[in-house]
Amino acid sequence: MPYMPLLRPIALALVALLQFPPPSTDVPKRASPQWIATYRDSANRLIGEAVATDAAWQRLAYLGDTFGSRLSGSPNLEAAIKWAAEEMQRDGLENVHLEPVKVPHWVRGRESLEIVGRIPQPLVMLGLGNSVGTPADGVEGDLLVVRSFEQLDAARDQVKGRIVLFNVPFTNYGETVRFRAEGPSRAGALGAIAMLVRSVGPPGLRTPHTGALSYAEGQPKIPAAAVSVEDAARLQRMADRGTTVRLRLKMEAQFLADADSANVVGEIRGRERPEEVVVLGGHFDSWDVGTGATDDGAGCVVTWDALRLMKKLNLRPRRTVRVVLWTNEENGGRGGQAYRDRHLHELANHVMMLESDSGVFSPTGFGFTGTDVARAKVRDIATLLAGIHADAIGANGVEADIGPSVQQAGIPAMSLEVDGNYFLVHHTPADTVDKIRPLDMARASAAIAVMAYVVAEMPERLK
Amino acid sequence: MPYMPLLRPIALALVALLQFPPPSTDVPKRASPQWIATYRDSANRLIGEAVATDAAWQRLAYLGDTFGSRLSGSPNLEAAIKWAAEEMQRDGLENVHLEPVKVPHWVRGRESLEIVGRIPQPLVMLGLGNSVGTPADGVEGDLLVVRSFEQLDAARDQVKGRIVLFNVPFTNYGETVRFRAEGPSRAGALGAIAMLVRSVGPPGLRTPHTGALSYAEGQPKIPAAAVSVEDAARLQRMADRGTTVRLRLKMEAQFLADADSANVVGEIRGRERPEEVVVLGGHFDSWDVGTGATDDGAGCVVTWDALRLMKKLNLRPRRTVRVVLWTNEENGGRGGQAYRDRHLHELANHVMMLESDSGVFSPTGFGFTGTDVARAKVRDIATLLAGIHADAIGANGVEADIGPSVQQAGIPAMSLEVDGNYFLVHHTPADTVDKIRPLDMARASAAIAVMAYVVAEMPERLK
Repeated sequence: MPYMPLLRPIALALVALLQFPPPSTDVPKRASPQWIATYRDSANRLIGEAVATDAAWQRLAYLGDTFGSRLSGSPNLEAAIKWAAEEMQRDGLENVHLEPVKVPHWVRGRESLEIVGRIPQPLVMLGLGNSVGTPADGVEGDLLVVRSFEQLDAARDQVKGRIVLFNVPFTNYGETVRFRAEGPSRAGALGAIAMLVRSVGPPGLRTPHTGALSYAEGQPKIPAAAVSVEDAARLQRMADRGTTVRLRLKMEAQFLADADSANVVGEIRGRERPEEVVVLGGHFDSWDVGTGATDDGAGCVVTWDALRLMKKLNLRPRRTVRVVLWTNEENGGRGGQAYRDRHLHELANHVMMLESDSGVFSPTGFGFTGTDVARAKVRDIATLLAGIHADAIGANGVEADIGPSVQQAGIPAMSLEVDGNYFLVHHTPADTVDKIRPLDMARASAAIAVMAYVVAEMPERLK
Repeated sequence: MPYMPLLRPIALALVALLQFPPPSTDVPKRASPQWIATYRDSANRLIGEAVATDAAWQRLAYLGDTFGSRLSGSPNLEAAIKWAAEEMQRDGLENVHLEPVKVPHWVRGRESLEIVGRIPQPLVMLGLGNSVGTPADGVEGDLLVVRSFEQLDAARDQVKGRIVLFNVPFTNYGETVRFRAEGPSRAGALGAIAMLVRSVGPPGLRTPHTGALSYAEGQPKIPAAAVSVEDAARLQRMADRGTTVRLRLKMEAQFLADADSANVVGEIRGRERPEEVVVLGGHFDSWDVGTGATDDGAGCVVTWDALRLMKKLNLRPRRTVRVVLWTNEENGGRGGQAYRDRHLHELANHVMMLESDSGVFSPTGFGFTGTDVARAKVRDIATLLAGIHADAIGANGVEADIGPSVQQAGIPAMSLEVDGNYFLVHHTPADTVDKIRPLDMARASAAIAVMAYVVAEMPERLK
C-alpha cells in the first residue's frame, strides 16, 4: 500500500511542539534541599528578569534578519561574528575577544535534480554539505531505490553506473542520519555515480534537509544530495511500478581554500576564583539555507543571555562564567577542536561545560554527564527551576562543540533539553526565528542562567 | 509584539485535516424518503465498489508522477490530456474525445528576490502567474510594507520607485486573494516598480504560494511575486526597526503565443434520454509547481471515477453522464468558456453540472445552487450518503469551470464539499499526492457517483 501518511506525523509533531509546560500536577516536584535556599533569591531574580522581556528572541530575530545563514567561510558568518563581539561588549561582558579558527569553506553553487525524459521533471533537492560537485553537464543515470544498507548490498550487481536513492523513513536522527553520512561512500564503493537520500527529518511541505556527508577513506567520492520526502516517495512509486527512471543531477558544489573564522568569547570574571571556569555556548555557524535560528542561533543567544542577565542584575559569581560561540560545527567541528587546543592549559580548571544545540523550544531541563556526586548536586540546583518546568536532569550532556574539551579533560558536561520538534526544520530553509516562541527562549535563558550561576557560585567545586 | 505564532495554525489545520468523519452521534441523520428506496441498492453497490480499492488514488499518483505539473501551454499538460483520453477509453467510457481550446501560454523562467547589500540575502519567492517579467538585471528599489489597500493609499506619496509588500495575514481565501490579484495594479498605479504579496495561505514551512494576478486596464503592469510567510515577517520586522531594505527582483516571466490545448470529454450515454446530460468534472491544468494533486488532479479523478464505477457495475442511467476535464482554469478560464460556447445548443438539456475544485479531503457532501424544489430532491438523494458521512447539502455549488455554462443557461450547479486544509498546499510545490488519503478519494468518488447516478436516473428531471 503506497499511501504515505505524511500529514499525521507533522500534525502530531506540531501539536507536541506547541505544548506549553504540562500542568504542574503531571510533574512530581522535589523539594529544594537546605543548601539550595541560599540561591533562591538570586535564581528568582534571574528568572524574573528573563521572562519579563523578549530580549533573547529579539536578538535572535535581528541576527537572522540581518546576516541570514552563516555557513563556515561565508561573509555572513564573519559579519555576524564581528557583530556578536560588539554586542557582548555593549552588554558589559568582560574579556570579550575572538579566538581565530581556520575553517573549511564549502560552497553549494547552483544545483538541480530532474527526471530525464521527453518532459523533464524537476525534483526538490538540496546538495549535502561537503559533497563534491558534478561535471558542468551533470551526471546522468538510472535510479536504484533501496531502503537500507542491506538492500544496497543485496543489489550490489545493479549499482554500477546508477544513481542510488536511500529511501529510509525517519525514525530518529541517530538511526537515519547514517544514510546521509555514510550512504555516498557505501554507494560509491559499488560503482554508483551519485547518491540521493530521503531527507533526514519528519515529513514537511516538500521540504529538503541538507547536512554533512562523510566520505570514507579510499572510496570514490560521488556527488550526493537530499530529496524531499515527497520526491523520495514519488521515485519509490515509479520504481515500484517498474518504470525505468533516469535522473540527471547537477551540482556546482566545491571546496575553496580554508577561510578565517573565529570562536567568540565573553566572560563574567569570577570574584574569588576567576581561574575556575563554567563554559556556556552554542555554535554560531549554520547551514546555508534558512537563517540558522534553531540550529543554532537560539542556542548561542540563550547561553549568551545567561551572562547578560547576571551582568544586568550585578550577580558576579565566585567563579568565571564564559560564553563561547563556536564556529564550524556543521561541516568540520574545527571551532570545538580549536577551543580545546587553545585552552588545553586551563581545561583542568573547567568546572563544567554546557552547550545548547537541540533547538530552543519548551525547555524541560538538562542532560548531564558527570559523577554521581555531581549529578546529585545538579539535581538539587534544578529544583530552583521547578516553577518554570525546566527541572528535569537527563542522562547525557555531551554536545558536539564541548565534546573535544570534555573528552580531553573529563569535564562535567551539560546540554539544554527541550520539548519540541527540532527535526521538522533542522537543516532546512524553514529554520527561521518564527518557529521559536519568545517565552520559550526566555525560560531557556533563565534556566541556563540559574544553573550556571549556582555552579559558579557555590563554595565547593562541582565534581 | 512581533512574535508570529506560525505553528499553531498549521497544527490546528493539520489536525482538522486529519479528522476522520465525525462520530455518527454528531450528525443528525435524515431518514431516506420513500422514493429514494429504489436507488438504495445501486447506491450501495457504487459505494462498495469505490471504497474497496484505492484505484482513484493510484490513478492520481500515476498522473502526477508521470506528467508532473500541468500549466496551460506546457507539454506536460498536453501529454497528460492525451493519456487521460486513452485511459477513459480503457475504462470503457463512450464518446471519448478532445474539444480543442486555445490557451494562454505563460512561462515562469528563472526568478529570484534578494535583499541587496554587502551580503545579499536570498528570499523564498514565487512569481505570480500572468506577471510581466523584469529586465535581465532585475528591478531594484526600497521596500515599502503595507498591511492593507488603505495603508497603501495613505502612503501614496512614498510609493513611487519602491517595491511594495502587501503583508496581510491569511484569514480566508476570498478576503486575502484580492491583494494578490489586485495588488500589482493598485501599487503600479501609484508608481511602484514591483509588488510582493505575503503568500495567500496559512503559514507553512517557508512555503511560497503562486496564483494569478489580474492587471487592471490602463494601469502600468509591474512584475509581481509572492513571498513565504516567513520572508514577509522578516521584511516587516526589518521595516519596523527602521532599516532601509533594498530589494532586487528578477523574473524572466513572459507570455508566449497562445497554445493548443483541449477539454477531455467522456460519457456514459443515457439509455432513455441521452440528450439530457449530467456533467461532472474538474480542471486538468495546474500551476507549474507541485504536481497539481489537490488542485485539481484529485477533482478530475474523482469525477471521472464516478463514470468508471457506473461502467464497471453496468449501471447505465436514463440520462447521459458526462465527465469533462477542463483546461486552463488557473490562468485564463478558457476551458470553461470554450465548453459553454461549444455546447451552447445543448445547455438547455444540461440537467446539472458538478465540479470538484476544493481539494479531495474528507468529503462532507455538496454545495448546491438551484431551485428550492431541486434542493429538496438533492437533499433526499444525499440521504443515500449518510453512511459515508457525505450527506450535507450546503449553499453554493458554482465553481470556476462550470460557471460560464451555469450562468448562461441557469443550470443547477453542484460542488464537492470537503473537510480539509486545502489552502495549506494550494498553489505550492507541496501540492503532491501524498497529502491526500486514498480512503477520502474513494469516499468522494462514491458520493459523486451516487449523486450523479440518481440525478441521471430518476424519472423526473431535476429542476
